[in-house]
Amino acid sequence: MATRFALIIEPTASDDARSDFSATFRQVDASAPALSVGELSTQRGDGIFESIGVVDAHPQEVDAHLERFVRSAEICDLPVPNVEQWRQAIDAAAVLCGAGEWVVKTILSRGIEHGPTPTAWVTAADAADFSRPRRDGISVVTLDRGFDLNTPARAPWLLLGAKTLSYAVNMASLREAHRRGADDAVFVSSDGFVLEAPTASVILRRGDVFVTPEPTGGILHGTTQLSAFAWLDEQGYQTAYRDVRADELRGAQAGWLVSSVRLAAPIRRVDEAAMPVDHELTDALNAYLLSPRD
Amino acid sequence: MATRFALIIEPTASDDARSDFSATFRQVDASAPALSVGELSTQRGDGIFESIGVVDAHPQEVDAHLERFVRSAEICDLPVPNVEQWRQAIDAAAVLCGAGEWVVKTILSRGIEHGPTPTAWVTAADAADFSRPRRDGISVVTLDRGFDLNTPARAPWLLLGAKTLSYAVNMASLREAHRRGADDAVFVSSDGFVLEAPTASVILRRGDVFVTPEPTGGILHGTTQLSAFAWLDEQGYQTAYRDVRADELRGAQAGWLVSSVRLAAPIRRVDEAAMPVDHELTDALNAYLLSPRD
Repeated sequence: MATRFALIIEPTASDDARSDFSATFRQVDASAPALSVGELSTQRGDGIFESIGVVDAHPQEVDAHLERFVRSAEICDLPVPNVEQWRQAIDAAAVLCGAGEWVVKTILSRGIEHGPTPTAWVTAADAADFSRPRRDGISVVTLDRGFDLNTPARAPWLLLGAKTLSYAVNMASLREAHRRGADDAVFVSSDGFVLEAPTASVILRRGDVFVTPEPTGGILHGTTQLSAFAWLDEQGYQTAYRDVRADELRGAQAGWLVSSVRLAAPIRRVDEAAMPVDHELTDALNAYLLSPRD
Repeated sequence: MATRFALIIEPTASDDARSDFSATFRQVDASAPALSVGELSTQRGDGIFESIGVVDAHPQEVDAHLERFVRSAEICDLPVPNVEQWRQAIDAAAVLCGAGEWVVKTILSRGIEHGPTPTAWVTAADAADFSRPRRDGISVVTLDRGFDLNTPARAPWLLLGAKTLSYAVNMASLREAHRRGADDAVFVSSDGFVLEAPTASVILRRGDVFVTPEPTGGILHGTTQLSAFAWLDEQGYQTAYRDVRADELRGAQAGWLVSSVRLAAPIRRVDEAAMPVDHELTDALNAYLLSPRD
C-alpha cells in the first residue's frame, strides 16, 4: 500500500450548506510537500481518521465510516465534520482511484497549533494484494491491551472509542506479533476479555452463533464487522454482540479478523492452538465484501 | 507557542561519521508545505519526539533529551538516532531562535509508508509566557491513566516508556482538566499510584524529602525533574525516587509539575484540596532552570 495522491479539503466548514463541494478539493501528489511542520497531526497524532475500502472506484460502507468519523470527532472535541463534504471528497478520490482495490483515508487533524481551523484531507493508496490471507488465513497472538473492560466508561479522556491518528501502539503491537512469528494480534483486556485487533475487528463462531465483542467504548465498532453481520443474518445465521472471554478464542469453531481493506481473514492459529478454517464460508463472505455496497 | 521554522534533516543516517552535519539541514518556513501526505507521523502518530527548552539561544539539558530520544527509538524499533547529527541540528535551531524563551522539538518519524528511511526534523517555536504559572502556581486534577503499575513491564508494546508522537490522549487529558476548571492533570495508575502529568513530571515535598515517582516504564524520566533533583541535592535537600500513592498528593508540603518549557509550576490545588506553595524555593529553582545548563 503506497499513497498515490491526496485531496486537500479547504475550507473544511461544518456548517457549509452548499450542494457541490468540488471547489474545496485540491489534488496533490503523494510525494509533494503538502503539510506544514506546524501540523498537530504530525506533532501529536492529534486528529482522527477512517480507512475506507474502494473496489473498482466504489467506496464501501461510506455511511458507517462517516458515522464513526463523526463520533470520533465528538470524543476528541474536534469540530463536527460536514458529512456531505466528506462524502463528496471520498467519491472524488474513488473515481480517481479507478479499477482494482484501493484504500481511501479520511483525515481530520486539529490543524496548526493555535490555528483557526482543523486541517482535512483524504489520501488514496492502492491496496496490497490480500488474496493469500483471505484464502489461507492468518495466525494471531493475543496481546494484553493494559486496561480492563470498565476503563473506557470510567476514563473517556483515554479516547478508547475514537479512531485517532495516535496509532503508534497499534503499529507496535503488529510488530510484536510479527516478532512472535504471527501475522496479526488480538488485544485482550487486562481482565481477560477479547477486544479487537490493532486494525481489525474479531468475529468468532461459537456453535451456531457468530459473536463479536460488544463495542462498549473500549473498541471501535467495525464497519466491516457490521457488513459481515448483515450478510450472516441474511444467510440465516445467528449473530450476537456480547462480552467474549479470552479463553473462548480457543474453543471457537472458526474466527476471522475483519477490516475494510484486507476484508475477512480467517484465523488459522491463536497463540499455540490451531483453529479450523471454514474456506467455503470465508470465500462467500469475501465475495460479498468485494461487491459494491453502501 | 507558534512554530516559526523547522530544519529538515536529510539524510538522517545513524552511521554517518562526518564531523559537520550542517549540509544535512534545510531550513523551511513554518507555514510552508514541507511534509508529504504519506508521512507516517501524520497518518499514525508513528514516531518519537523531544521538546527542548531554549533560553537566549542556549538549548537546555540536551544530553538528557538525546538519551531519552535514543531510548524512545529503541522502544519503537526506529533506527537509532545519530546523536551528533541531532545535537548539531538542535544547536543550529537554537542559534536561529535568538533571544528569549523558545522550544525546539526533535521529531523522528518512521517516514513514508514502505519508504527507505525515517523522516527527521527539528521545529522551533517561541514559548508562551509562563511567568504567571511559575509564580502563582497551577491547579491540577487527578485522572485515571487506565493501567496499573505492572502493565508497562508486562506489555512493552503499549510503548508506555517512549515519548511517541501519539499524544492524542495527553491532549485530551489536558482538555478534561480545563473542562473541570483546572490548569493541568496528574495521571494516576488504576491501582492508585501517581504517574506523571500529560506533559510534565511530578515532584512532591514529603517532610524533608523531595520525591518523584520511580520511572519504571509507565512514565517518562523527566529531563527537568533530573535537573531539579540535581539542584535540590546541591542545596542540601534529600531527593528520592519511589512509588508514590495517590493519597500522598494531598498530604504533601508542596508539589510541582516540572517540564522543559514551563519549568517548575508549583501546584496550589489538587482536586478539591489546596496545597501550600513555597514561593521562595520555586523562584530559586526556576532561576536555576532558566540559567544555561548542559
